[in-house]
Amino acid sequence: MTDQTPAVEAATTDSPALSAGQVPTSWYNIAADLPEPIPPHLHPGTKEPIVVDDLLGLFPRALAEQELSTQRWIEIPEAVRDVYASWRSTPLLRARRLEKALGTSSHIYLKYEGASPVGSHKPNSAVAQAYYNQQEGITKLTTETGAGQWGSSLAFAGALFGLDVEIWQVRASYESKPYRRHLMELYGGVVHSSPSELTEAGKAILANDPDTTGSLGMAVSEAVEVAVGDQAARYALGSVLNHVVLHQSVIGQEAIAQLEAAGEDGADIVFGCAGGGSNLGGLAFPFLRHVLSGDSSTKVVAAEPVACPSLTAGEYRYDHGDFSGMTPLLKMYTLGQDFVPDPIHAGGLRYHGMAPALSHVVHLGLADAVAIEQDAAFNAGILLARTEGLVPAPESTHALAAAFRHVSESSAEETVVIGLSGHGNLDLPAYGSFVENYPG
Amino acid sequence: MTDQTPAVEAATTDSPALSAGQVPTSWYNIAADLPEPIPPHLHPGTKEPIVVDDLLGLFPRALAEQELSTQRWIEIPEAVRDVYASWRSTPLLRARRLEKALGTSSHIYLKYEGASPVGSHKPNSAVAQAYYNQQEGITKLTTETGAGQWGSSLAFAGALFGLDVEIWQVRASYESKPYRRHLMELYGGVVHSSPSELTEAGKAILANDPDTTGSLGMAVSEAVEVAVGDQAARYALGSVLNHVVLHQSVIGQEAIAQLEAAGEDGADIVFGCAGGGSNLGGLAFPFLRHVLSGDSSTKVVAAEPVACPSLTAGEYRYDHGDFSGMTPLLKMYTLGQDFVPDPIHAGGLRYHGMAPALSHVVHLGLADAVAIEQDAAFNAGILLARTEGLVPAPESTHALAAAFRHVSESSAEETVVIGLSGHGNLDLPAYGSFVENYPG
Repeated sequence: MTDQTPAVEAATTDSPALSAGQVPTSWYNIAADLPEPIPPHLHPGTKEPIVVDDLLGLFPRALAEQELSTQRWIEIPEAVRDVYASWRSTPLLRARRLEKALGTSSHIYLKYEGASPVGSHKPNSAVAQAYYNQQEGITKLTTETGAGQWGSSLAFAGALFGLDVEIWQVRASYESKPYRRHLMELYGGVVHSSPSELTEAGKAILANDPDTTGSLGMAVSEAVEVAVGDQAARYALGSVLNHVVLHQSVIGQEAIAQLEAAGEDGADIVFGCAGGGSNLGGLAFPFLRHVLSGDSSTKVVAAEPVACPSLTAGEYRYDHGDFSGMTPLLKMYTLGQDFVPDPIHAGGLRYHGMAPALSHVVHLGLADAVAIEQDAAFNAGILLARTEGLVPAPESTHALAAAFRHVSESSAEETVVIGLSGHGNLDLPAYGSFVENYPG
Repeated sequence: MTDQTPAVEAATTDSPALSAGQVPTSWYNIAADLPEPIPPHLHPGTKEPIVVDDLLGLFPRALAEQELSTQRWIEIPEAVRDVYASWRSTPLLRARRLEKALGTSSHIYLKYEGASPVGSHKPNSAVAQAYYNQQEGITKLTTETGAGQWGSSLAFAGALFGLDVEIWQVRASYESKPYRRHLMELYGGVVHSSPSELTEAGKAILANDPDTTGSLGMAVSEAVEVAVGDQAARYALGSVLNHVVLHQSVIGQEAIAQLEAAGEDGADIVFGCAGGGSNLGGLAFPFLRHVLSGDSSTKVVAAEPVACPSLTAGEYRYDHGDFSGMTPLLKMYTLGQDFVPDPIHAGGLRYHGMAPALSHVVHLGLADAVAIEQDAAFNAGILLARTEGLVPAPESTHALAAAFRHVSESSAEETVVIGLSGHGNLDLPAYGSFVENYPG
């Protein structure tokens, strides 16, 4: 017994090393460092490379400029950094109990974006997009969402910057995931099931296929149509485009600093899930900067679902970002703008294409891609929950499964970073049948 | 443009000041410092003060000793601290956007326990309880749960320490909150609706009232009965008892250190929600240590629901902790062991009694209590979500509402700490009707 106040001390030496409130000062733009430029987006009418002015009906000028920028570092506005500081830096967790369960001598680190208020990496871009729109006098944003991670992030960011947010949610998710709709509405967002009767695009789709379960491409068409028809509104996209991937680069920058503080000499391999590509790009591109400069040999692996395999089974060609062909043409790995994923697939990552920047990086051989079966993904999530307590988003479980397969097949003692794009609290029913049949 | 890597820097000076991984080394026991001792628990048969041996059918010796201890500091075992370090220290957030919305010049800090893997403060005790049981050779824990915060925390802790966990969940929650059951099962827990046909207590209750919506007191009776009848099993309680409040003292110790690092001279007033009392006790008792030693004058306010007002409308007397009278008699503010809260109340905090330690502190005048209406609580939660992004647990919204009322009625410039016991991601439907009618 002692009367002195005991200290608050570090319990382990390999815990997350940056303090909360520490935020990168600039976003990293991989376009500055690639050996060949990212193929330009093409105007949907002229098929010519787009210029900033072509994008101003969709986005504020600052974001249009970021979309085409090749500047390496782009300063993060102070107002955005102050919001980031509410939850950033996110934890980088050494997963010792998971390592033990896997029987690996590799060091596994989890970069956990589920620690954001909305529960995913998406607010990293939503906050930036809301800020720039508000700065340019825009009063309303429209967007699409699938499971609702992006829609809730934009609704949150809109609430902070005083913008109305109107969201078209893919019908399959709108009907099966009511918690996310409640979350979007809690933040003040207005949510519609897509396709809807509110737009010409939606009406045309429904006339042709009244029972469609919807797709992100369809929801994009609806949101774009409404934004283009309203002077005070702009459209906001949650992934795919260069400026979105740019904003996510805070993830990888933090992870690199945190690894160093934890005493690691960089990462040997980085895994992330890839749907539209912003999560993986945000995590991996800052690591690739050091690969491109010859300072490291970090490998990057994109994990996608077998049910929506754009990188592993798609074509690398120009395609539209939306169902109805309203967006610029993007050079990307694509399953086709009319792709509709099987609604039985519960794991997110349902977009038909892949970020042009990430597609280009994969095409250049700077990153690998693997396709993961749904049961392997969820079983990886269950193992994480039962060892580290974290409930990963179904999306994130693809990265876990890919990493677990890698360490089980490798005898090397590596430093492995797994990006967890979000938590799975709102996806718990999706875990149900996999928990019942879990072999562990 | 610069080619140098920009720094990862602190974006604000008042962000959470402890690094993640920093964990208190000891729990703080207020029993050492109170001017009068906490009235002893009484044996349910003899009505004599209980001794450690009386508790060994329910708890392992280490926890039984902690229950009766008056030692000021009790060292946290290294294995427990290592698990805590997965998410502790939890953030202490300066809520500047919330302050602005409230129009107050007070400094509002949120101590956010929703950052734990399970999403509440409950694992602080669950991990400790699982550890001590495993150390003494126990292989199974039984417990009760209401909304499921405690049940999921114990299932998580059981998974880490290799213990089976069997949970009786209050029927009203079992039926209305399926996400929490999925979470308990994801961690490997076995969940029953309570009252159940699996116990004599449950059968007797159902014979008398087949349509009962259940209560925590009933679920405690069932879990205790099963534990007492199994040599290898023990019972684990999620709140109320001294050792549970003790484990939660990490919250307040961190908050004090974080306030100091943020440049504050302690707290003027601390708000927390109170159901069984462990959340508020864990936050407030380390602050009261300084009050009891004459070093500070921090005020403490317990916020409870009008629908379950044990502190503000209950009697201070000996009562059982469970419905069937199997537990020791506890001196506490109580609504009676047979109290069943109105199932229309969505805000948690549904226990009929209040922790003896907290009851004693309130009785001595060291803490105040206020009862909050349900709509005021949820409206406070909505305001928090729309300013700071956090979705608070319905329980936690009671503390917010009490604090908002205080700052709106006070012109003083104070340092206000609000304990947020957890996140509300699994309670989103409960927000629905309040969002529709939100006046903001």
